[in-house]
Amino acid sequence: MTLPAASVIGATQVASAKMADRHTPFVFDDWYVAAFADEVGPQLLARTLLGRGIVMYRRADGTVVAMEDRCPHRSMPLSAGELKDDHITCAYHGMRFNPQGDCVHVPSQSTCPRAMGVRTYATLERGPVVWIWMGDADTADARRLPPQPWLTEGDWETSKGYMHLKASYVRLHENLLDLTHLSFLHAKSFGTPDYASAAYETEIGDGHFVVMRNVVPTTLPPVWAEPTGIKGQGQAARIVRSEFRSPAMHEVSVSFYDCTLPEDARDTFRIRTAHLPTPESATSTHYFVVHGRDFSQHDKAMTKFMHDQLFVAFHEDVTGLALQEEVLARTPEHELYEFSVGADGPSVAMRRYLLSRVMAKA
Amino acid sequence: MTLPAASVIGATQVASAKMADRHTPFVFDDWYVAAFADEVGPQLLARTLLGRGIVMYRRADGTVVAMEDRCPHRSMPLSAGELKDDHITCAYHGMRFNPQGDCVHVPSQSTCPRAMGVRTYATLERGPVVWIWMGDADTADARRLPPQPWLTEGDWETSKGYMHLKASYVRLHENLLDLTHLSFLHAKSFGTPDYASAAYETEIGDGHFVVMRNVVPTTLPPVWAEPTGIKGQGQAARIVRSEFRSPAMHEVSVSFYDCTLPEDARDTFRIRTAHLPTPESATSTHYFVVHGRDFSQHDKAMTKFMHDQLFVAFHEDVTGLALQEEVLARTPEHELYEFSVGADGPSVAMRRYLLSRVMAKA
Amino acid sequence: MTLPAASVIGATQVASAKMADRHTPFVFDDWYVAAFADEVGPQLLARTLLGRGIVMYRRADGTVVAMEDRCPHRSMPLSAGELKDDHITCAYHGMRFNPQGDCVHVPSQSTCPRAMGVRTYATLERGPVVWIWMGDADTADARRLPPQPWLTEGDWETSKGYMHLKASYVRLHENLLDLTHLSFLHAKSFGTPDYASAAYETEIGDGHFVVMRNVVPTTLPPVWAEPTGIKGQGQAARIVRSEFRSPAMHEVSVSFYDCTLPEDARDTFRIRTAHLPTPESATSTHYFVVHGRDFSQHDKAMTKFMHDQLFVAFHEDVTGLALQEEVLARTPEHELYEFSVGADGPSVAMRRYLLSRVMAKA
Repeated sequence: MTLPAASVIGATQVASAKMADRHTPFVFDDWYVAAFADEVGPQLLARTLLGRGIVMYRRADGTVVAMEDRCPHRSMPLSAGELKDDHITCAYHGMRFNPQGDCVHVPSQSTCPRAMGVRTYATLERGPVVWIWMGDADTADARRLPPQPWLTEGDWETSKGYMHLKASYVRLHENLLDLTHLSFLHAKSFGTPDYASAAYETEIGDGHFVVMRNVVPTTLPPVWAEPTGIKGQGQAARIVRSEFRSPAMHEVSVSFYDCTLPEDARDTFRIRTAHLPTPESATSTHYFVVHGRDFSQHDKAMTKFMHDQLFVAFHEDVTGLALQEEVLARTPEHELYEFSVGADGPSVAMRRYLLSRVMAKA
Repeated sequence: MTLPAASVIGATQVASAKMADRHTPFVFDDWYVAAFADEVGPQLLARTLLGRGIVMYRRADGTVVAMEDRCPHRSMPLSAGELKDDHITCAYHGMRFNPQGDCVHVPSQSTCPRAMGVRTYATLERGPVVWIWMGDADTADARRLPPQPWLTEGDWETSKGYMHLKASYVRLHENLLDLTHLSFLHAKSFGTPDYASAAYETEIGDGHFVVMRNVVPTTLPPVWAEPTGIKGQGQAARIVRSEFRSPAMHEVSVSFYDCTLPEDARDTFRIRTAHLPTPESATSTHYFVVHGRDFSQHDKAMTKFMHDQLFVAFHEDVTGLALQEEVLARTPEHELYEFSVGADGPSVAMRRYLLSRVMAKA
Repeated sequence: MTLPAASVIGATQVASAKMADRHTPFVFDDWYVAAFADEVGPQLLARTLLGRGIVMYRRADGTVVAMEDRCPHRSMPLSAGELKDDHITCAYHGMRFNPQGDCVHVPSQSTCPRAMGVRTYATLERGPVVWIWMGDADTADARRLPPQPWLTEGDWETSKGYMHLKASYVRLHENLLDLTHLSFLHAKSFGTPDYASAAYETEIGDGHFVVMRNVVPTTLPPVWAEPTGIKGQGQAARIVRSEFRSPAMHEVSVSFYDCTLPEDARDTFRIRTAHLPTPESATSTHYFVVHGRDFSQHDKAMTKFMHDQLFVAFHEDVTGLALQEEVLARTPEHELYEFSVGADGPSVAMRRYLLSRVMAKA
């Protein structure tokens, strides 16, 4: 063809208009990862989250404070100031703010202006990560945080990492809900050729999107073959559940076992990965990852091996999604069209859900 | 003056509004140089042409394929994919496209979505260059390509080069239709002082703009004196025809002879230069050049000498036009005014023609 | 608080809307420093002032010429041309302009187009600086230039410097009319803790804004203690007058004396600093400074010591204001709110005055 027919392009554009993309406002009323817990201590940490400049620190009692990183007097970043006794003193005029964001001292006068203060945000610390509620702190609801026991309880060995993604978090979620790209984008890391065409099942609900793919029998790539010892051709079962749990969390759970053994003689090896994207801007994302396994928990060399191998693959996504974002940026909006295929069902539903979250609020 | 009168400024602005400039949309329905022929082989070549991301490659049968550099599934650049058997496989999900842009394989399912494909562009290969029709491929008309026998037939010795110009292609065409600047911008390369004030003739027609300048007698600068051997003061005739042939082609033809010899004893030395600007963006241009001569065709040292000297001069234009573009960018539109002089007649007509091409389409 | 109440935020935003900020158009009808006098000689100097590209040079008779840095023919920067006999010849087509901006020669024809010329600006040279009137040259009024005898007469020892500030000139003026920040932003240079809370007086008139702060007794920081020899704890009086004199000039006058001596035995040490901000763009500023003192005029080592120490402090402002500008740039306009305190009285009045200057013109 020289160009798809106008009616065909129009139909794809109508379909895309019903899905979230980089033009869609952020979903503020939810929990996002603000930082790894060990990044937050008794010093000021600045980070842009959902387009807002945020300053964070840990109080003497261990709780985490997050507030707008802007003095409400003359807009100096509070993160340029000093932290002392759980209070921030602004670098410009020395105004002092308590952990609640209230101005409690103005050096040039005896009292503070009435109602002067800075916006604060609710936070929750869970295991290795600090979550922040980017909507009104009054409406923060801890029950909205998806349960994640393996991240916080002791019998999983975990490692973590951070990547700066030059792409919209929407496209990262799209990527995570799709398993067919493993055979191509990850052909050299953890993808295998049979992955793209393996049978799959989906669960699609309100804010609940899952792809399950059982690749049995298959041959494991080194990242999994080495730790599990299931190295033979066609010796492995690879049972994958990949689940969108919130705009800020996608969890991948995989089980491996030796499918050449009788059912009662099998060891099952479980790994889990929490993909934790926090939008920085419309087209950039803080990409936090925590990975864990429930076997050989004390083998630190194995932890390092798996971590290194996995991050090679995650960087393939980061690189690929940045290329995609560049193409989207240079394509005139009226010339942009994207066809969806069957395997996109869960991610299309997820992108529609993200848009509906924003529309419901508007 | 402290500032030209408002009425004077207004008159210049009215005149400018009738000419194409960097704000004018591109003329899509024409042939532009996409690449030098030897750049296009059995691998993927990405380039932005008229604001569109294009991927090119050469098929096994030698023909050149050009298509939109964007997978119609999820906008990955196709140029990041793999070329095999004349088909591109997308790096993200492995979708495969034939040279006609049709999607012929989706790994995750047995069939392709109906009508799924990517826009392709018509191409023509002529001698050292590959041309692309940036409008609808259906309307591509090879007869619109200006004839250029010296580029494609054997008895001219040619060399070629590429420059990235940080300016609008309109201003490059304006520059090329003006010979008076040679005495100044090119004072140190191929301009001579008598050039600016030499008599000239013009031909101005519909899409046809020519300046002819006969500088007789004159003294040649080294770039021409060395190859022709006409080195004496006032010994040379320099007969120049500079012609806009299309939005993508300007041809300069120059003849030199020793004007101190009787007419029947003269050797005439001919050189030609095809200036081939292809807009990249509104304010940047791929500037392809092919230069040739019809004498001493086998003297490769002479070819190198002329090429090197000429490109010094062409870089003077590239540098000057980039400065001009910076001034245009920083000048508030309502404070911008440009006076034209007599020698601008052909370029003003050419710029009006470019605007009319766009208006006719709209 | 989690966020100030909407009514409180609204009130701060109403107040801010009555003050100039980076969105406010420039005040063109005034004198600004274009350059230090020793920067302007018989060569072309290009600089962007109030968003306009300006080219300057000094004529053979010593007077300074300033004109738009854009050839009115085809927008080449005139600063890329050549200066000869007080005339500029454009680098592109050789058009020549006299110091009045008139086109006096077009090489390709015998006459110049009627009324062709480039905008010129009135200039005044006073001691170490060249001033430019950025409004219509016809309306330039030398009486609008604030008197500054200490800068031009002989009995003060001066030094000067330039900083490029990545912030609006409005915020620099705000900074200069505020003395309370010395105790914080300049805690390590010339601020002392007692500065922020010292009593002060103000003068607020039409275009006339002064803060006076007498810190008596106090301990001087090294920058002042060394030159004056008043080094004891609580030994000094520090009498400061900080005055907005025009959109382009803020003058700080400080007197020091040893307050432990009887009144008739005191030496008074005077220093003055002319802060001379010229907007480059809405968010960048040419920050010229001239500093002087009326004692030990021949001690060049003291001049260097004071200059170096002072510029450490001025760079603290430059760094701080750039941080502030970054925060302003990233904060969505509807989420921006700034509370003012008592000490902001003079700067709030000054910012209202700057806005009124623009409104009066509109």
